[in-house]
Amino acid sequence: MSEVYANRRNRLRDRCSASGSATALISRPVNVRYLAGAAPRGAVLLLGREEDLLLSPGPPDPQPGADRLDEALRVQTLPGRTGGPNATGGDAAVAAADLAADQGVDSLAVEEHHLTVSRHRALRSVAPRLRLDDVGGIVEQLRLVKDEEEISLLRVGAEIADQALGELLESILVGRTERHLALELERRLVDHGADGPAFTTSVATGPHSGRRGHRPTDRRVEEGDFLTVCLGAAYHGYRCEIGRTFVIGTSPADWQIELYDLVFAAQRAGREALAPGVACRDVDRVARQVIDSGGHGDALPQMTGHGVGLEIEEDPQLAPTAMGKLDACVPVTVEPGVHLPGRGGVRIDDTLVVRPEADGGPELLTITTKELLAL
Amino acid sequence: MSEVYANRRNRLRDRCSASGSATALISRPVNVRYLAGAAPRGAVLLLGREEDLLLSPGPPDPQPGADRLDEALRVQTLPGRTGGPNATGGDAAVAAADLAADQGVDSLAVEEHHLTVSRHRALRSVAPRLRLDDVGGIVEQLRLVKDEEEISLLRVGAEIADQALGELLESILVGRTERHLALELERRLVDHGADGPAFTTSVATGPHSGRRGHRPTDRRVEEGDFLTVCLGAAYHGYRCEIGRTFVIGTSPADWQIELYDLVFAAQRAGREALAPGVACRDVDRVARQVIDSGGHGDALPQMTGHGVGLEIEEDPQLAPTAMGKLDACVPVTVEPGVHLPGRGGVRIDDTLVVRPEADGGPELLTITTKELLAL
Repeated sequence: MSEVYANRRNRLRDRCSASGSATALISRPVNVRYLAGAAPRGAVLLLGREEDLLLSPGPPDPQPGADRLDEALRVQTLPGRTGGPNATGGDAAVAAADLAADQGVDSLAVEEHHLTVSRHRALRSVAPRLRLDDVGGIVEQLRLVKDEEEISLLRVGAEIADQALGELLESILVGRTERHLALELERRLVDHGADGPAFTTSVATGPHSGRRGHRPTDRRVEEGDFLTVCLGAAYHGYRCEIGRTFVIGTSPADWQIELYDLVFAAQRAGREALAPGVACRDVDRVARQVIDSGGHGDALPQMTGHGVGLEIEEDPQLAPTAMGKLDACVPVTVEPGVHLPGRGGVRIDDTLVVRPEADGGPELLTITTKELLAL
Repeated sequence: MSEVYANRRNRLRDRCSASGSATALISRPVNVRYLAGAAPRGAVLLLGREEDLLLSPGPPDPQPGADRLDEALRVQTLPGRTGGPNATGGDAAVAAADLAADQGVDSLAVEEHHLTVSRHRALRSVAPRLRLDDVGGIVEQLRLVKDEEEISLLRVGAEIADQALGELLESILVGRTERHLALELERRLVDHGADGPAFTTSVATGPHSGRRGHRPTDRRVEEGDFLTVCLGAAYHGYRCEIGRTFVIGTSPADWQIELYDLVFAAQRAGREALAPGVACRDVDRVARQVIDSGGHGDALPQMTGHGVGLEIEEDPQLAPTAMGKLDACVPVTVEPGVHLPGRGGVRIDDTLVVRPEADGGPELLTITTKELLAL
């Protein structure tokens, strides 16, 4: 695995050199994790002309899940850290700037979208002659297209989420609260080998159903409810997402069937539009048009899908204002939903990997059925 | 409750006026929560000379737990947000700066320890004539001393954690993994009414025991192990912490009894030192001296306690380099621990509220026994 991280750092080095900064300071934890294999608390990565260095404000904490620091990477521990994440005493970013200045580096590219104004000022004050540039979202861009190793971790995560959801569906649901169902799902994720949930598991019943990111409450599942479940597994740091809506009881009402069919058609349209070279906004548009045609366009959220990876919500966005096109090997969610205030609604959410048609088209990672199940 | 938030905002307004900025922009979510009762995702609080305004980048999400936005607060929703937390399109902080400039405000105090360099630049670019000052950690300072309402929420959270821990101790532990025990504790926290765990529950067995912030693994509890458990409940947003170490089997080994007695003595010394007016570093020192006298000073972490409240780790710090003195009504943890690599160790962790001697001295919130239990 060590080569993977060295290759990523070398790609970053090339990009930085091309934009005029030979030395870069990566402070955003998820970016440190991507480039170093793990992100000890408060650690930063100093990417030099030739050698890279991980500076950590304390002895390395045990890392979550299977994160292992690249053994080829030199690590330096700072003495005497007592501060929290906002303290500048023992701040690894400040120490890195100091070190770079000592080594005669004249310009350092930093992550201005992550460093706070206070930390940036502390960097300037320890190294007043060092020019601080902005590395921008280069690491986020590198992270966009996944290698097959990353995709296989997402695939395992999706299998785990499918298993946890499948087991839940076999149990009695009526009378149980949203919070208990969410906790049971999270326990099952861990039982099946997840590091933990990829995000706060959402279970929404009755009038809550169909709401994006609904936080579970003490409401109990009742006959006739829509039940929307959205969960994901974190596996070796990679996060996937699945969302399904079910109906409780023997026969769904007509409005439930109609709404379900509409959201299902929108979600299928979005999935089928995924291909390398397609504009992200066009994927959003085809899904949105279906919902619009059913008269529920106003109920749609501002985004119908997004990238996943080390973060549960990362680039690209599938939204009307999104720029850019899809590439092969980019994993995304497709998750339109409609929530009718007071009544409830439907969300259907899959994680897929964009693949060219020659490879069989989009690869569906979350394979739980999307039929409207009556439970 | 509405008055509580208005009073907090008025205190902040007084502080800001005293330091020359009549208008402040609060962007750090936990600070927004403190001043507004809830922190919708991406929302910021614009504290004006007379009126305050919450700017939210989208329709309000359902809030976690019992967080309710102060009804007396004016709320403005920004149109057309599609960006994530790093996107500046639809950034409520940028919109707030724009609005302040429109209203003829000449200087705006911002949280430079929270705003990133990129967002700060976006503020400057929408409102080039607006002078941006630093509000510093004023809100964090206001949050330090808790009112009795806040303390009662912490007290309920501590009771919940005690209950969850007590129930676990009645079950069979040998053969179960750290991960399962941690999940069971988290489920019990929610069963008893917590919003959720206050932080990732730590269960550490055998050689892992005594390690601060140990992430649960698949190691199973064995006869003769030390078992360290650290958990907390979040209740209406407030977070407490309890940590205990047990021994598995009928009779602890001599080294286990010795180490336990040492850490217990250190923790008691720390607890007994808590009083209004005492220097934070002195509380740390008395606990540290006990551990030092037992020859384990090197194994001590850099901090023996910290404040709790809306964050699980907030000011003050109980550490050798900490500045400042304790006040009445400040809740802190006292949590010395010793971890011997390869063997394991002991942590004992309580949440207490600093009270004057006339009121009975420090109030212990986490009341689970600190005897060395053999389970």
